Amino acid sequence: MPRPDLLETFPNPYPGRSYLIAMQSPEFTSMCPLGGIESDAAELKQLEGGAPDFATMHINYIPADVCVELKSLKLYLWSFRNDGIFYERAVNRILDDLAAVVKPQWMEVIGDFNIRGGIKSVITAHVGARTA
Amino acid sequence: MPRPDLLETFPNPYPGRSYLIAMQSPEFTSMCPLGGIESDAAELKQLEGGAPDFATMHINYIPADVCVELKSLKLYLWSFRNDGIFYERAVNRILDDLAAVVKPQWMEVIGDFNIRGGIKSVITAHVGARTA
Amino acid sequence: MPRPDLLETFPNPYPGRSYLIAMQSPEFTSMCPLGGIESDAAELKQLEGGAPDFATMHINYIPADVCVELKSLKLYLWSFRNDGIFYERAVNRILDDLAAVVKPQWMEVIGDFNIRGGIKSVITAHVGARTA
Amino acid sequence: MPRPDLLETFPNPYPGRSYLIAMQSPEFTSMCPLGGIESDAAELKQLEGGAPDFATMHINYIPADVCVELKSLKLYLWSFRNDGIFYERAVNRILDDLAAVVKPQWMEVIGDFNIRGGIKSVITAHVGARTA
Amino acid sequence: MPRPDLLETFPNPYPGRSYLIAMQSPEFTSMCPLGGIESDAAELKQLEGGAPDFATMHINYIPADVCVELKSLKLYLWSFRNDGIFYERAVNRILDDLAAVVKPQWMEVIGDFNIRGGIKSVITAHVGARTA
Amino acid sequence: MPRPDLLETFPNPYPGRSYLIAMQSPEFTSMCPLGGIESDAAELKQLEGGAPDFATMHINYIPADVCVELKSLKLYLWSFRNDGIFYERAVNRILDDLAAVVKPQWMEVIGDFNIRGGIKSVITAHVGARTA
Amino acid sequence: MPRPDLLETFPNPYPGRSYLIAMQSPEFTSMCPLGGIESDAAELKQLEGGAPDFATMHINYIPADVCVELKSLKLYLWSFRNDGIFYERAVNRILDDLAAVVKPQWMEVIGDFNIRGGIKSVITAHVGARTA
Amino acid sequence: MPRPDLLETFPNPYPGRSYLIAMQSPEFTSMCPLGGIESDAAELKQLEGGAPDFATMHINYIPADVCVELKSLKLYLWSFRNDGIFYERAVNRILDDLAAVVKPQWMEVIGDFNIRGGIKSVITAHVGARTA
Amino acid sequence: MPRPDLLETFPNPYPGRSYLIAMQSPEFTSMCPLGGIESDAAELKQLEGGAPDFATMHINYIPADVCVELKSLKLYLWSFRNDGIFYERAVNRILDDLAAVVKPQWMEVIGDFNIRGGIKSVITAHVGARTA
Amino acid sequence: MPRPDLLETFPNPYPGRSYLIAMQSPEFTSMCPLGGIESDAAELKQLEGGAPDFATMHINYIPADVCVELKSLKLYLWSFRNDGIFYERAVNRILDDLAAVVKPQWMEVIGDFNIRGGIKSVITAHVGARTA
Repeated sequence: MPRPDLLETFPNPYPGRSYLIAMQSPEFTSMCPLGGIESDAAELKQLEGGAPDFATMHINYIPADVCVELKSLKLYLWSFRNDGIFYERAVNRILDDLAAVVKPQWMEVIGDFNIRGGIKSVITAHVGARTA
Repeated sequence: MPRPDLLETFPNPYPGRSYLIAMQSPEFTSMCPLGGIESDAAELKQLEGGAPDFATMHINYIPADVCVELKSLKLYLWSFRNDGIFYERAVNRILDDLAAVVKPQWMEVIGDFNIRGGIKSVITAHVGARTA
Repeated sequence: MPRPDLLETFPNPYPGRSYLIAMQSPEFTSMCPLGGIESDAAELKQLEGGAPDFATMHINYIPADVCVELKSLKLYLWSFRNDGIFYERAVNRILDDLAAVVKPQWMEVIGDFNIRGGIKSVITAHVGARTA
Repeated sequence: MPRPDLLETFPNPYPGRSYLIAMQSPEFTSMCPLGGIESDAAELKQLEGGAPDFATMHINYIPADVCVELKSLKLYLWSFRNDGIFYERAVNRILDDLAAVVKPQWMEVIGDFNIRGGIKSVITAHVGARTA
Repeated sequence: MPRPDLLETFPNPYPGRSYLIAMQSPEFTSMCPLGGIESDAAELKQLEGGAPDFATMHINYIPADVCVELKSLKLYLWSFRNDGIFYERAVNRILDDLAAVVKPQWMEVIGDFNIRGGIKSVITAHVGARTA
Repeated sequence: MPRPDLLETFPNPYPGRSYLIAMQSPEFTSMCPLGGIESDAAELKQLEGGAPDFATMHINYIPADVCVELKSLKLYLWSFRNDGIFYERAVNRILDDLAAVVKPQWMEVIGDFNIRGGIKSVITAHVGARTA
Repeated sequence: MPRPDLLETFPNPYPGRSYLIAMQSPEFTSMCPLGGIESDAAELKQLEGGAPDFATMHINYIPADVCVELKSLKLYLWSFRNDGIFYERAVNRILDDLAAVVKPQWMEVIGDFNIRGGIKSVITAHVGARTA
Repeated sequence: MPRPDLLETFPNPYPGRSYLIAMQSPEFTSMCPLGGIESDAAELKQLEGGAPDFATMHINYIPADVCVELKSLKLYLWSFRNDGIFYERAVNRILDDLAAVVKPQWMEVIGDFNIRGGIKSVITAHVGARTA
Repeated sequence: MPRPDLLETFPNPYPGRSYLIAMQSPEFTSMCPLGGIESDAAELKQLEGGAPDFATMHINYIPADVCVELKSLKLYLWSFRNDGIFYERAVNRILDDLAAVVKPQWMEVIGDFNIRGGIKSVITAHVGARTA
Repeated sequence: MPRPDLLETFPNPYPGRSYLIAMQSPEFTSMCPLGGIESDAAELKQLEGGAPDFATMHINYIPADVCVELKSLKLYLWSFRNDGIFYERAVNRILDDLAAVVKPQWMEVIGDFNIRGGIKSVITAHVGARTA
């Protein structure tokens, strides 16, 4: 289950300057909520509850008062591992969870998912206005 | 025969936010309607009805009320396999079929076709105004 | 249906020398015989009879008396387009069909298939002994 | 828990020929048995039981009487998802499980693991003698 | 001799939409009009009349009423093979010839020429205003 | 300890023109102030006082009256080697130190840090307005 | 017409040592003798006498008494420009022409031809035994 | 010594159209004026008078009445070979020399210098306003 | 000071099989013992005692009874950070230290060092005979 | 003038072990002895005495009693800067000069020269037998 309660912050060391923080995790994995495009749902449910999805997750933001602590971000992203969630929902959920804690000037989340059914998907969402 | 009736949608999980969905299928194939630039049409018609074309098809859009369901998109793209269609028509047709079903804020289709006669072709068309 | 009868040859212009001919077709496509690892077979059979497979097919050989004619090879490879065939069988079948017509000193066929179910497959088979 | 019972085979369609089958799964993931080099084990155990590991797993073999069925291989590899296992053990275990079922002329397993603690690890093991 | 009379067109299948067609020919070759930067003109004139030039030629346009037919474009580009022409003139000449026949909303020609005398040259010219 | 006193300048040889100087050092290293995301702080403190960080540091600027002398910049960057400093602070500190000495029209510092805990970080900050 | 009479040599400056000279010309072009796999021979014959072929030609050798002079090699390769010749014949012909003049310990010619009919061809031939 | 007197021009063949000419020389070399960041100046002065610098020099412009002749540009760039000059001065000097002769609508010179002291430098300067 | 006492091992989990373990650390750094090829030794000694070197260190081995523990390897490699050591000595020293603790069937260490004075260096040493 | 007298050595720190040292200098430059394939010799002789050549020079060896000192190697390679020398002679000369000073178990020199007249050249020579 996504665990936004794990996210921690630290005070922005240069709060008077609009600057950009870009983080990238190539090891995001979650489960397809339906067993998905490639699976025989009946067989899989007996195993793991669905088919795994894999993505590189990009999180870019301009901090206001606080920055997200790197280790807590890692633990938060790990908490999707055994949850079933659609691509569109995963990206927007991460954006909402992070923005609620970090309250950035601007934040963008890009989920670059591995090929499924011969089709690659990239979802991009943001909040706020980019000022740096 | 292209089968737009196969396309299915699901409700946009974050309808209040302008965000971008980018999908890419490297396995699009159709037939050249005339036997085309490289073929001896007479000989080929006896075989398959024409020469095959290959493309990577990119579909990028900002959803409004619904998103296209990934598996139905795969089946729709497969339905061009044995149809003869020109590059320009294929790209614009896919755009029209998808836009009719998804009614996006903005949608772009890019067909990146393999070399024929020593010439590579990329066709790009869109509807709506990009807002994310 | 694979059509080895389409294969044509021409006399090897340098029969006294062991030299290597390497050909590569990035546009091989056939159908999965069962609807395959990713498909809902029932739905697909109503459409096309199965899920498409894609591969780059490498054909390397040392000619003896004849060489395979390039255009006839293209037509032969096209003839798999709407046939259901397993990876292992496709590669070995192409090797057998070509070797029967070309009677090479040595011939190798490598089928480098696109990802299915998150797994990439490459099948390599040969006949004869490599002498160049 | 690794589930070798999920592995299925089909008869080798060309048993009289030594040929090579190479498969590659870029989506292997398991758990570090100790919480591993990068983790604060106490905090993680409350979450998931350890830190996740990621690898591309290569499986290359020359079949004898049977080939491994691709979908069953996928399900078998998925069964490591929530198990704690060391790199060296994972690679040798997969080799043993597969070789027991496929009884190949030769089989090699290569686990190419993501960077941990600034160090990348690749483990390579094989059984039998390569004859093709 | 450049043969613009070879260029053929077909009606734009989607005339109401501003969309982009991008074509790329990596096999453009012509002759240097003076024997050029690398040659001993006297010796070469006895051979071939000059030194060969090689380029990848990019042709990008937004069609109005007609599109250029791909095979006729290939034949037109081949017609430069044994003509002496400067880089700047070749690119602008192709732009003029094509624009005269296609009457596009916008058209751009880019000639990306191979290294001569240790220097690479890329010439870019366009007509009209880009609207897609 | 960062040593901004090491930075030296020379007069801008073309002060009347806004032009861009871009420098890139792939060999920046400092220490994590806490032992960081991957370390067992107790064990490490006995060794070196923390875990090392590595980055490629980009410094781009438009000079006004002076340029930074390349060798002094190298020595200044080396002076972070055994200091503990957070990513955000390192990038903004370098920007402040350099801008204080060079007084540029515009200056940007980008710190592209190696993966830690499976996450890559890039920090980008600037002062002034880019005029070239 | 291929002009082996253009080839010139100079004395090997280190005749007592077996060493390797590898040359690569990415600008080889000739004509397809039949108008080839992609052409409408009738139409093309009126233009240029056939369709152009393009290759990167590799020439590797261990010299004995003489080396080939680089400029004369360039002129020799240019002399194929307007000749119709099959791939297999071109590579073996160049090998024979060069070996007759250079009398090397070992020589290999590799012709790496551009895609025609969706198929890439590479022809490799050699004379002598490689001793370095 | 830089020799701008070597630069020659020819009339712009399409003076009524704003188009772009981009040239790139990967073989620019000059000498460091002080022996530079890596040298033991005393030892080197006895040898060659300083340490060599290497760069790829990009020259992009929109011609007005004349274009720069390619061979004369090559000779001009060669004339820096044994001169000591700083990076910033070399790029601005080339821009001034070329602009004085070509009088372009717009011209940009980019010097992309090899790593010295572990630091890579790229200098970019321009004159005029880009109109194509 | 290099700290081989930090190296720890664990029992080889598959001692009866010759298999290969390949590790790669792109973050090795030490100090040049003399201030080295690029430095003004006097100035640097006042700072840090010399100029830093950077390398990617590859450690490949076939285990016998024990494997090296990954975290202890990381700490051992970190222990070179502030030591002055020549390239050849560093690689052979790491090989000796590791082989003394791991007693492998075969072990190879490759140090791939960054450019110094425009020259890149790679040192490769091994002990034992490769059996897998 | 090549200056082998500049080469210095230091005692091999691990003389009892056959190990490999590989060095690579991407900044080798000399002059073409004749003004070469691309030049108008008369005009150039007035300038610089010929056309410049550029190469990446690889020097690989297994030391016996001594290793070549890196800085002295750099100065030796610089000493070719204004000398006219053919490719084959340059590579073999460097091999002879270095082998005379280093007396290695095995040494290989590879000169990878930039394109001249559209042709790339790579010369490879060695002395001794490779034992590591």
